[in-house]
Amino acid sequence: MDRLPGFRDFYPEPLPHPDVGSADARQYIFIKWREIARRYGFREYDGPPLESLELYTTKSGAEIVGQLYNFEDKGERDVALRPEMTPTLARMIAAHERAYKKPIKWFTIPQLFRYERPGKGRLREHFQLNADIIGETDPAAEAELIALLIDTLRSFGLTEADFVVRLSSRNAWHDYFVSHKGNPAQEYEFYQIIDKLEREDPQVNDRKLSALGFSLVEVTAFIQEGKPTTELQSILDNLSARGLDPFVKVDYGVIRGLAYYTGIVFEAFDRKGEFRAICGGGRYDNLVKLISGGKVDLAALGFGMGDVVLLELLKARGLLPKFDGGIDIFCLIEDEALRSDSLKLIHNLRQHGISVEYSLTKAKSDKQFKRAQELNAARTVRLEHGPDGELTAKLKDLKSREERTLTIDELINEVSRK
Amino acid sequence: MDRLPGFRDFYPEPLPHPDVGSADARQYIFIKWREIARRYGFREYDGPPLESLELYTTKSGAEIVGQLYNFEDKGERDVALRPEMTPTLARMIAAHERAYKKPIKWFTIPQLFRYERPGKGRLREHFQLNADIIGETDPAAEAELIALLIDTLRSFGLTEADFVVRLSSRNAWHDYFVSHKGNPAQEYEFYQIIDKLEREDPQVNDRKLSALGFSLVEVTAFIQEGKPTTELQSILDNLSARGLDPFVKVDYGVIRGLAYYTGIVFEAFDRKGEFRAICGGGRYDNLVKLISGGKVDLAALGFGMGDVVLLELLKARGLLPKFDGGIDIFCLIEDEALRSDSLKLIHNLRQHGISVEYSLTKAKSDKQFKRAQELNAARTVRLEHGPDGELTAKLKDLKSREERTLTIDELINEVSRK
Repeated sequence: MDRLPGFRDFYPEPLPHPDVGSADARQYIFIKWREIARRYGFREYDGPPLESLELYTTKSGAEIVGQLYNFEDKGERDVALRPEMTPTLARMIAAHERAYKKPIKWFTIPQLFRYERPGKGRLREHFQLNADIIGETDPAAEAELIALLIDTLRSFGLTEADFVVRLSSRNAWHDYFVSHKGNPAQEYEFYQIIDKLEREDPQVNDRKLSALGFSLVEVTAFIQEGKPTTELQSILDNLSARGLDPFVKVDYGVIRGLAYYTGIVFEAFDRKGEFRAICGGGRYDNLVKLISGGKVDLAALGFGMGDVVLLELLKARGLLPKFDGGIDIFCLIEDEALRSDSLKLIHNLRQHGISVEYSLTKAKSDKQFKRAQELNAARTVRLEHGPDGELTAKLKDLKSREERTLTIDELINEVSRK
Repeated sequence: MDRLPGFRDFYPEPLPHPDVGSADARQYIFIKWREIARRYGFREYDGPPLESLELYTTKSGAEIVGQLYNFEDKGERDVALRPEMTPTLARMIAAHERAYKKPIKWFTIPQLFRYERPGKGRLREHFQLNADIIGETDPAAEAELIALLIDTLRSFGLTEADFVVRLSSRNAWHDYFVSHKGNPAQEYEFYQIIDKLEREDPQVNDRKLSALGFSLVEVTAFIQEGKPTTELQSILDNLSARGLDPFVKVDYGVIRGLAYYTGIVFEAFDRKGEFRAICGGGRYDNLVKLISGGKVDLAALGFGMGDVVLLELLKARGLLPKFDGGIDIFCLIEDEALRSDSLKLIHNLRQHGISVEYSLTKAKSDKQFKRAQELNAARTVRLEHGPDGELTAKLKDLKSREERTLTIDELINEVSRK
């Protein structure tokens, strides 16, 4: 029996096969995500992996259903495995917004699902760090959120040479659209063309833009000039104060396809342009109102950073640590008469926070030692009877090969200290 | 729009409503689960939350489908949201068993799903710590696993006065069944009666047992005598060596309903008997072979500990810490001319691992201070120009109300130290 197509199994390292996921790398990423969010004062939340389909069609229209892992459940409810977290967040905020002082700074690490056409490397699930700020209209919120994004990537060892945040603004494009006398009914269509500009053939772009009364040359010039709006400038200044300006640039080539963005938008890319966007986000001031049926109206902004592209990038830059699962101590039990005392010692060490392994059953001395090495134990310990019959411990460092004889108390002290 | 029935939303504390889940309590439990598993040398793995339905019907028969959150997906596959982790584990082990030295000690913290009839407090999802040992037939493996179980519960502050592990054995019951001349075809039926003995009316029990040629009086006497088998005695001795004997007792009243157990079984209960089982498990030596279609034959044992009963028990015993989301420092920005310098300081502090909050926008001094208190900040810091124009920091402890003036370097040193 196989796992379903597009899903990953996560094994402990070393991985048994290149096609499986690494549970250690996943946990490494989650720990960093949580740690940096905590420093920034973001609080964790989560919702169900399954939601009513309506939550997503309300936000994105019926077209979205084609991409969803949706079904009718046994209670005849139309439901979907969550494809994104923002609708759940909006629902949760709307349900209890009065209990929280604004701005609300929340994060979560959901697994998300899409019914993508299967294909090489095309997954139907991934994990994502989602961080959002609710209830703040000032672009200082964008700066705070982008600083979190940058510091999160930096926490993995990525530098300004590795990635850049391309910062743009729906408002800047709206002003451009209005000042160039675009037809208001075609504004979203215009954004869609801008969104595809870099990937599309110039002639196609030109034809599409002309049809709406725009010129590719002028649009390209506007992007290339990249003159920051007042709002964008305030974000740049804010990030400069933090010393983060080398990680950001204004780039109107980014507009993000999702209809629901209302202001600043941004995406982070690797500088070499080898990978898809590492993360993306922006302001969505209307969504909470929409999801709550008009009951709660709160400004909001957020970003999502997936685990798949991040992992590829960290691998390519050699920034993933070696996950050897190394344990602190392997307890050698060479004399079965000492098994009870060894178990007592093992339990004592574990109570002190030390990770300890041993052979569950009687085994030859060299086999036990080999096992200690396989498990990447830092040290071995072995009980012996001293000259006066008292128990002593032989502690051996497997790197330096140095071995010392200690009393049990000395041993606990010694290994607990580190 | 509401969440689906039987699912939980997890909010940061303080909770906005008694009916929602606590993201902080959940994370607190997960951290302990991971930490104690690590000390015991268990490695983390995970599989997909969605699996082919066949994985569960192969293990448990077609009857299981009535309890599953199953559906036909867009690719016309019969799939189910995982109701338990063991079949996924068996599948993963079978796929790559040769890459791992035995015994394999693995754990995971999956979210599991069942399509239960909705009702008060009846959930359709919960989280579970699953720990398993694969490839070891000796009962020393049971002792190791039960020690992990006990120490996991102890890590939350639960003591021998709070819980007990009831230890039993399918082998003991098998011997009883054979020596009392049971009909081999009715053996599983007999186990089912034993499993329900405590909850069922004695007359019903007597009638059912008589029908199979057994006597309730004799069965009850066998349970009350509780004479450990050699195998059980070796587990008790092993746990005694670790000092864990006060947490275990032999109790043949436990047999566990699941058909797939093959040897030792156990369940942990609160001593007062107020809650359902805190966790349960046992040996299932045939499952890997069954799931792998006979390709891989490995002994196995494991347990599952859910988050719902554990959380209820910790609440009832007053053992949950207060989750106030407290941040380390709130930076007061009383002079907007110092905002840039304050942002620089905030970033610097965060780089040192300190959690820092501040007012994103201009706000009155008393409002900022109030916010600092709401966020349970341990201290406030406020930049000022000193007598020679240099920047100094006023660091105030919000508990002691003590305030000191420091240079920026002194400040960083001071707060990084703790």
